[in-house]
Amino acid sequence: MTAIKNVLYIMCDQLRRDYLSCYGHPHLHTPNIDRLAAAGVRFTRAYTQGTICGPSRMSAYTGRYVSSHQVAWNGVPLPLDEFTLGDYLRPAGIRTALVGKTHATPNTDAQQRLAMTPGSSEAEQLNEVGFEAYFRHDGLFPDDPIFDSKREGSPYTHHLRGLGFEGRNPWHDWANAAEGDNGEILSGWKMRNAHLPARIPEQHSETVYTTDRAIDFIGEQGEQPWCLHLSYIKPHWPYIAPAPYHALYSKDQVLPAVRPAPGAENDHPVYNAFRQHEESLNFSREEVRLNVIPTYMGLIKQVDDQLGRLFDFMQSNGRWDDTLIVFTSDHGDYLGDHFLGEKEFLLEPAVGVPLIVRDPRPQADVTRGTVDEHLAETIDALPTFLDALGLPAADHRLEGRSLIPLLHGQQPAWRDFAVAEYDYAFQAPARERLGQAIDRCRMYMVRSERFKYLAYDGYRPQLFDLQEDPQELHDLGTDPAFAAVREQHQGYLFDWLRGLKRRTTISNQEIDLRGKRFRYGEPETEKLVPIGVW
Amino acid sequence: MTAIKNVLYIMCDQLRRDYLSCYGHPHLHTPNIDRLAAAGVRFTRAYTQGTICGPSRMSAYTGRYVSSHQVAWNGVPLPLDEFTLGDYLRPAGIRTALVGKTHATPNTDAQQRLAMTPGSSEAEQLNEVGFEAYFRHDGLFPDDPIFDSKREGSPYTHHLRGLGFEGRNPWHDWANAAEGDNGEILSGWKMRNAHLPARIPEQHSETVYTTDRAIDFIGEQGEQPWCLHLSYIKPHWPYIAPAPYHALYSKDQVLPAVRPAPGAENDHPVYNAFRQHEESLNFSREEVRLNVIPTYMGLIKQVDDQLGRLFDFMQSNGRWDDTLIVFTSDHGDYLGDHFLGEKEFLLEPAVGVPLIVRDPRPQADVTRGTVDEHLAETIDALPTFLDALGLPAADHRLEGRSLIPLLHGQQPAWRDFAVAEYDYAFQAPARERLGQAIDRCRMYMVRSERFKYLAYDGYRPQLFDLQEDPQELHDLGTDPAFAAVREQHQGYLFDWLRGLKRRTTISNQEIDLRGKRFRYGEPETEKLVPIGVW
Repeated sequence: MTAIKNVLYIMCDQLRRDYLSCYGHPHLHTPNIDRLAAAGVRFTRAYTQGTICGPSRMSAYTGRYVSSHQVAWNGVPLPLDEFTLGDYLRPAGIRTALVGKTHATPNTDAQQRLAMTPGSSEAEQLNEVGFEAYFRHDGLFPDDPIFDSKREGSPYTHHLRGLGFEGRNPWHDWANAAEGDNGEILSGWKMRNAHLPARIPEQHSETVYTTDRAIDFIGEQGEQPWCLHLSYIKPHWPYIAPAPYHALYSKDQVLPAVRPAPGAENDHPVYNAFRQHEESLNFSREEVRLNVIPTYMGLIKQVDDQLGRLFDFMQSNGRWDDTLIVFTSDHGDYLGDHFLGEKEFLLEPAVGVPLIVRDPRPQADVTRGTVDEHLAETIDALPTFLDALGLPAADHRLEGRSLIPLLHGQQPAWRDFAVAEYDYAFQAPARERLGQAIDRCRMYMVRSERFKYLAYDGYRPQLFDLQEDPQELHDLGTDPAFAAVREQHQGYLFDWLRGLKRRTTISNQEIDLRGKRFRYGEPETEKLVPIGVW
Repeated sequence: MTAIKNVLYIMCDQLRRDYLSCYGHPHLHTPNIDRLAAAGVRFTRAYTQGTICGPSRMSAYTGRYVSSHQVAWNGVPLPLDEFTLGDYLRPAGIRTALVGKTHATPNTDAQQRLAMTPGSSEAEQLNEVGFEAYFRHDGLFPDDPIFDSKREGSPYTHHLRGLGFEGRNPWHDWANAAEGDNGEILSGWKMRNAHLPARIPEQHSETVYTTDRAIDFIGEQGEQPWCLHLSYIKPHWPYIAPAPYHALYSKDQVLPAVRPAPGAENDHPVYNAFRQHEESLNFSREEVRLNVIPTYMGLIKQVDDQLGRLFDFMQSNGRWDDTLIVFTSDHGDYLGDHFLGEKEFLLEPAVGVPLIVRDPRPQADVTRGTVDEHLAETIDALPTFLDALGLPAADHRLEGRSLIPLLHGQQPAWRDFAVAEYDYAFQAPARERLGQAIDRCRMYMVRSERFKYLAYDGYRPQLFDLQEDPQELHDLGTDPAFAAVREQHQGYLFDWLRGLKRRTTISNQEIDLRGKRFRYGEPETEKLVPIGVW
């Protein structure tokens, strides 16, 4: 086959770039993801546009930076005007479906303002950010409707109940909890329980069930074209894995934390504020790291095993040969590096993501199994899909760029820097500690070939030399020797802000057409609006 | 009365700030607009956000900069997500109506994508950018549906037909044309005809009919609260006035063109490209200026006379005392200054607008009849209305600020600079002459207390010292002595770009609430999502 008919867009949640063997992890072997890398291209400098789920994913689904799509944090609705994957692919006859997580939040207020009918296909499509929800599983079902208004109706919860896993919240009580010596439920939310096995057998766990649904979907489609977003919630917390994955890795295999030496610590006020968060304080304790990280590794290993099953299936039915496959993550996890937990700061453990792309066509043979050091971004996925499928580029909206030329061994002009954003307005502890106004909590990362520059509202910038200091231990933000580098990167940020796409309701082609008709008129007529004529 | 019940938002089209006697015109006496200024505050440094109709007006109606609302030129649809005046006022029970022009373009593609019902009240409201179209009159009815899809159905055209003014296009053939010696129609589009009277008696002209409709609306409302956007198409071209206004002013009363001395000319490439436009070449000829400008003045005089009638009416029925009145313009007109015609460049004749605000409350007595030199912007109107009416500020969307504190003699912290934008992607002649890509045609004005800085994609900036050179005849864009000033203003632009409101689907109050609930939990419960807990 020489054409791409389908797209498989695989995303893990909270998977660090360096927790895969193809990216160099010495103990965590991920042969199936490595097999995809050997059959495609592995990008070593891929960045997410935002280091938490909602912003990152909306960048993936819209092909636009966070400042453009406006979803600055989780639970923020996407504007109705934003086009998503399905808007681009569905009109071309490509069934565009979701299996797993999107973290989409319905924009109910906007729909009400426009008097859209709740439950209509258009409303549902907006609520699912353009996907057909073949199986939606956001994987977070605490007792609050902000996070999932369909909590009671979650298909995974139904599935568990059908299997006899009862209770008010089977997702929590079975799939994300362990059991104590006396049968008591030990919550997976509590990191002290991370070393215990989940109460659920592996075959009913989220990762396996999600993979089952993906295989179902692909099988059902037969030869009909599709785009599937296979979006695993794991290794995202709660950090708890079903047997045997809870015990595959030992404390000995936990890598040392990456932290500045005493006296050389990062003393930036925003960084310091994040260090005071509960997860940061806990992950700064070795006891926590040693209890959590082996399980984090086990959860990744489980995903890898399941991807092996999926890839085998695709090789058996021909889909391996007519499907563009992308594997990535929405963001990483500090796991105690830099004295931080979670991911809400723009250092490499959070903002760096794995990115592996396999183009099955012969034109990509030249790069198969190679490593690519170009700066890639999460927003590149959608333009890559459009390019692979031969669809128009929509360059008045899309801010990413197609990776296909790189996969085909070409030397396209490329970006000089990647940008990520984070808005800590939503993090009341950090914001209040810093005393910043809600409109003044923006952080920007500008990552060039060599440097990473972090800009803050109201604070000095930070600078790291990733060539000399890949672990970002030495902040050059005040070093006079690097003043010119900082200025250069501030200039990049300025250029980036100026270049954001802010004319999304009219295509460039239409602008060109109108501009000419308006001023020159049709060949046989006068100008449409004859202004300025004597 | 001590409360404001109503808002009258008067806008002229293409009215230069300096073509009113209260702003210093020596020959054009506008006693009624001056009377408003004497009863309110006259802002001497008010700027539009964009120098053509669509962008400027969408900034007025959304309270947001052009880069935020995305309407970069005429005929570009407003995104459906943008809130407009009516969205803010109507829920408070304030009838929000239009009499005259908005230059709104229906966002039909977006409405179809959401399956909105054509003709539904929500669709109509979006098409009218939030106004109830009591009488819409965009004033441009050439033979092309881009500019007015309701051409045949325009109420003003119907009115003319009802009076016996027939023909394919009565707006053009009667209201905007003169008559030759042999009864032939001489088009108002041709500036050579500007000195002739329109074929229509004054009482049926656009300016009078528009005023009639405003008086009808205000009368109908009685004591019920309202916001009326009274939006005159004049003195916008076609430059042709009904008798006696076509002959009120003589060639002797045309002020000399403001132009650099030979050898000291502005040599910026973008400026030079605009100088090559047909209207610029024509307005550079004295013959054209002398034929057009007296009529331009006559059209303004007619507006002033009509406003006198309206203000008398409001004083007679009590509305003068409970209505906030704003008088402004959407942009100016070069009229040959700087060798330019039209308005598509960011010098003072185009970007400076008159702005007069009358707050009827006693708290504003302290400033009545005074002049205010604060930098004001078109986007300030909407926040001013909300403030005057006691409605919430919507500060996650609105980028302007209320002028009420200034009207009440307070000393609020104020902006350091005003910003305007222009995108010449739509002007094929300039763009093609410069060889710029469609995405690289943006211009920005940063106007501080003393200086004006103009930034261009791909070209050097310009700088004018408005204190020493108020006519902008000496471009300091390459003067080494002003390097620090240019850098300061580039910094302003950088700050402005960073500060644009890009989180419009969630209010600041909601962010604060969620941020606290998310991290701290309710008093009696644990954190909602117990991340990072040991």
